[in-house]
Amino acid sequence: MTYELWYWNGIPGRGEFVRLALEAGGIEYRDCAREKGGESSLLMNDLRKNRKYPPFAPPYLVADDMVVSQTPAILLFLGERHGLAPEGTKARIWVHQLQLTIADLVVEAHDTHHPIASGMYYEEQRDEALRRAPDFRENRLPKFLGYFEAVLTQHEGWLVEGHKWSYADLSLFQVLDGLQFAFPQRMSHLAQHYQHVMALHERVAALPELQGYLSSDRRLPFGDGLFRHYPELDAA
Amino acid sequence: MTYELWYWNGIPGRGEFVRLALEAGGIEYRDCAREKGGESSLLMNDLRKNRKYPPFAPPYLVADDMVVSQTPAILLFLGERHGLAPEGTKARIWVHQLQLTIADLVVEAHDTHHPIASGMYYEEQRDEALRRAPDFRENRLPKFLGYFEAVLTQHEGWLVEGHKWSYADLSLFQVLDGLQFAFPQRMSHLAQHYQHVMALHERVAALPELQGYLSSDRRLPFGDGLFRHYPELDAA
Repeated sequence: MTYELWYWNGIPGRGEFVRLALEAGGIEYRDCAREKGGESSLLMNDLRKNRKYPPFAPPYLVADDMVVSQTPAILLFLGERHGLAPEGTKARIWVHQLQLTIADLVVEAHDTHHPIASGMYYEEQRDEALRRAPDFRENRLPKFLGYFEAVLTQHEGWLVEGHKWSYADLSLFQVLDGLQFAFPQRMSHLAQHYQHVMALHERVAALPELQGYLSSDRRLPFGDGLFRHYPELDAA
Repeated sequence: MTYELWYWNGIPGRGEFVRLALEAGGIEYRDCAREKGGESSLLMNDLRKNRKYPPFAPPYLVADDMVVSQTPAILLFLGERHGLAPEGTKARIWVHQLQLTIADLVVEAHDTHHPIASGMYYEEQRDEALRRAPDFRENRLPKFLGYFEAVLTQHEGWLVEGHKWSYADLSLFQVLDGLQFAFPQRMSHLAQHYQHVMALHERVAALPELQGYLSSDRRLPFGDGLFRHYPELDAA
């Protein structure tokens, strides 16, 4: 069976957390909204389908008779079915709570440039962004990175020791990648304090199972998505 | 075994989603941060413990050798172990994605009064709140309510037909309760358009297994937590 992934074309966004899991797991999928020229009408039409189990928003994954939306739920599902997380309850729930913490960090990173309304342009909320971003850089970002540093210090190599990488390791890599793009000065300054976190980023980037994907044009560059680089929102 | 729930004393907050599941499921627990006078040092001391599986933030649940944090992960865990959600993969993942959508709504409701920094006072970000709240009331809130209305229209009585209530039904009740507290004018105006959603709220409020809890002093009133009533942020 080939999964159908649906996510906006043109940005990595939340779809990328799912793509990384599919790619690293060697799982077959179609990136449906990027087929046939990738016009946005492809996804809009699919979203309009009358479904008994409707997705709230992209990304969502169509698998046989299931439609799974919400990134952490998609990863929980793929993790269970394809061994992208350990099986036992304790480790399985642990990986999932890490994923949910990563999801919180993603929202807060996004809201630095969209603190008022996701449907408005950045320029319409730039003044507020200039107030929100410093709190993120100085308080929230170190809190999140410090948490993952503490976790990685106690576990060997990956977020769950005794397992290979899990979907949460892949997602943490992706967030770090996005943060380095959006806040290069701040991340460069913080790197020395979070060496285990930065080593995890390197370790995922070097995974043999991801080399083909990361060097392909399927891997989209950051741009106007979740992670955006506005120099005025960054500082060491 | 008696679970230990840890959450800030004095507000329902995110802890309440867990409490409702524990109470409706008839599951024994201690509300640890509210014992012995409920000083905040109780929770602070517990948070400082050096743990191999540390919680990122309250609420968290201590169960035997597990510490589970992140509200949706706690509910996933309790749901599986105590039948608070269906067992099959399809329905179990469905309930979880609904819970994650509820969690998104909670963050957006909170950020109406704290659009700049959760660590700052409301008064320090009131101007920004006055810009964010209208977008929430007019765009985001109807989008979320419309989604749950569409789901409930297709399922019989509860968010997953063929099951009794699930933890997601309880959480949706709690969010609606909070929204009615925070935005009474807007919710009163919207109620007519989301009759299935409002009926779900009534149905959970009338659950026999919750009557003892809802009428007890364990059920905390809203106040300065996730859901806050600032009249200037509300409008029909």
